[in-house]
Amino acid sequence: MHELRKDILLGRWVAVLSESKLPSEYPKIPFEEPVEENCVFCEGRENETPSEITSIRKAGTSPNTAGWWIRDLPSFNPVFRVEGELGRRGVGIYDKMNSIGANEIIVESPYHDKRPEDMGLEQMIRLVKMYRDRISDLEKDTRLRYILIYKDSGRCAGQQYTHPLTFLMATPVIPKVVKDELDNAKQYFAYKERCIFCDIINEELRTGERIVYETKNFIAFCPFAAQFPFEIWIIPRRHSCSFTEITVEETEDFGLILMTVLKKLRQVLNEPPFNYFIHTAPNMVPRRNHWHTLGEDFHWHLEIIPRIIRTSGFEWGSGLYILPTSPENAAKFLREVG
Amino acid sequence: MHELRKDILLGRWVAVLSESKLPSEYPKIPFEEPVEENCVFCEGRENETPSEITSIRKAGTSPNTAGWWIRDLPSFNPVFRVEGELGRRGVGIYDKMNSIGANEIIVESPYHDKRPEDMGLEQMIRLVKMYRDRISDLEKDTRLRYILIYKDSGRCAGQQYTHPLTFLMATPVIPKVVKDELDNAKQYFAYKERCIFCDIINEELRTGERIVYETKNFIAFCPFAAQFPFEIWIIPRRHSCSFTEITVEETEDFGLILMTVLKKLRQVLNEPPFNYFIHTAPNMVPRRNHWHTLGEDFHWHLEIIPRIIRTSGFEWGSGLYILPTSPENAAKFLREVG
Repeated sequence: MHELRKDILLGRWVAVLSESKLPSEYPKIPFEEPVEENCVFCEGRENETPSEITSIRKAGTSPNTAGWWIRDLPSFNPVFRVEGELGRRGVGIYDKMNSIGANEIIVESPYHDKRPEDMGLEQMIRLVKMYRDRISDLEKDTRLRYILIYKDSGRCAGQQYTHPLTFLMATPVIPKVVKDELDNAKQYFAYKERCIFCDIINEELRTGERIVYETKNFIAFCPFAAQFPFEIWIIPRRHSCSFTEITVEETEDFGLILMTVLKKLRQVLNEPPFNYFIHTAPNMVPRRNHWHTLGEDFHWHLEIIPRIIRTSGFEWGSGLYILPTSPENAAKFLREVG
Repeated sequence: MHELRKDILLGRWVAVLSESKLPSEYPKIPFEEPVEENCVFCEGRENETPSEITSIRKAGTSPNTAGWWIRDLPSFNPVFRVEGELGRRGVGIYDKMNSIGANEIIVESPYHDKRPEDMGLEQMIRLVKMYRDRISDLEKDTRLRYILIYKDSGRCAGQQYTHPLTFLMATPVIPKVVKDELDNAKQYFAYKERCIFCDIINEELRTGERIVYETKNFIAFCPFAAQFPFEIWIIPRRHSCSFTEITVEETEDFGLILMTVLKKLRQVLNEPPFNYFIHTAPNMVPRRNHWHTLGEDFHWHLEIIPRIIRTSGFEWGSGLYILPTSPENAAKFLREVG
């Protein structure tokens, strides 16, 4: 079984795979073209994938047959597995546990060459609903602490297959990047008695210079101190800690803003590689009172990071990133297209 | 002037360049081949570079002429500049400051095709001495809080030129990755009254299974919860917070272990792209008593990260990395070659 190990210095967990890859098995350039031929994610090949977990499909069609709009599958090579106990244990001065969790593949479109944002708003809304439903379902498992929805587009962004896909990774620990956001938002709330994200929204609306797009319920903006050039956040105006609290109206509106912003980004940067991921509150733990203020100090959002700059020893050694385009200029380019 | 902006949520600084790059100026794949032709770093072309800051050279030769072993130059396009004031200021709810600091290029070899580790121990010792001397010199500037020495080897590791180079970046802030190490080491020391790095060294020597190489004064090992497969740390056995405290004997020994480990890594992974960087204590600030325990709770080291895996939305969204090769297996491969 794969295992999770805790970095004793940074408190960051890493997943160590049980079947160690040999040195010769690493590709010379780790950014191969994604696999294209024989795509089992295309409509009509449902019997060649693992059995679907759930799907959004046309009335009257059966699971694992054609006629679906969005399909959710278990991962072919999961790093995190549902079966088993957490098995937390010490090893000398270090800590490890079993790699309990879930990996799922959300097939965003029945068509190999058609992204959901190019299929129209209805398809985007289905996708958002699937994200919400999968998080809602998995957060019932009390062994799991966090559910991450993420997308890889383009080979420099780690895309493995050319079919449009989103991935889901459920982990028994709160990942480091999320924990940093939670801890700092909590600290800000303790000092200001206000949500840091609500303050950011107000500041962005006040100046307007980093706003990319607005809808009734959401704003999209380039963060003041983004990590990557042309980075965009989409955040609900309404204070809400968890993506699973999204309303029907907000679901439709989120589909609209995500579709619009992805199209803008693809147009401005000419189909760049990018990732996006949702940061939402971690799962409740049984001793609920420990988390009872969580709703006050966190605010879910989606982050889009274009992968158009290389990272060198400077970024990895320091965590200090360099933005060749200012967020104000990036937002201006993004506002003006489409 | 370029500016530094603070991420209000994560406390991480980013550098925003003053001349914003246009969307069309980003390359389609951000990992171009390094520039090869017309290399001004080669011996004999000293008059085509900015004037050298310092060099280690043959007796009787003059600055900015041939006859050098290691040469230190100002960066051609510095992100951080020496001139000016810090200018810390608030902008709405956010923070920014001027991009004060220094960027230097350490030319590791007079020969375009010969890396210092292939030139023998004498050259490696000269390189280590140059690292020490540059940090010692720059830490006198009280506006600077941190000096990062780092190397990029191979285009997937961000290498810009094919000539063997190390870079130096001096910043007016303690970068996020370093600050995390410092904070956690301090917290560990407060609880255990022991240095976390000394504890790691003892644990690694006790089990031995992740040790790559040992010398009289240093050990090299694959960390228990490494971020990257085949990641290697080199750390002095003697407790010492700052790289500038390295003794003459340790300088020679550090040259030896760095040379050996780089050759092992290049052999096992067949010339992989990699970065390395030194993590040392930040510069003293004028109110020294604030830092008086720093020597107890930090321990300098060098980290080598092979860039042989792609990073996807999972890693960027979570900070949770996946190791396809366990550190024990990686160390075994590295021990057995050479």
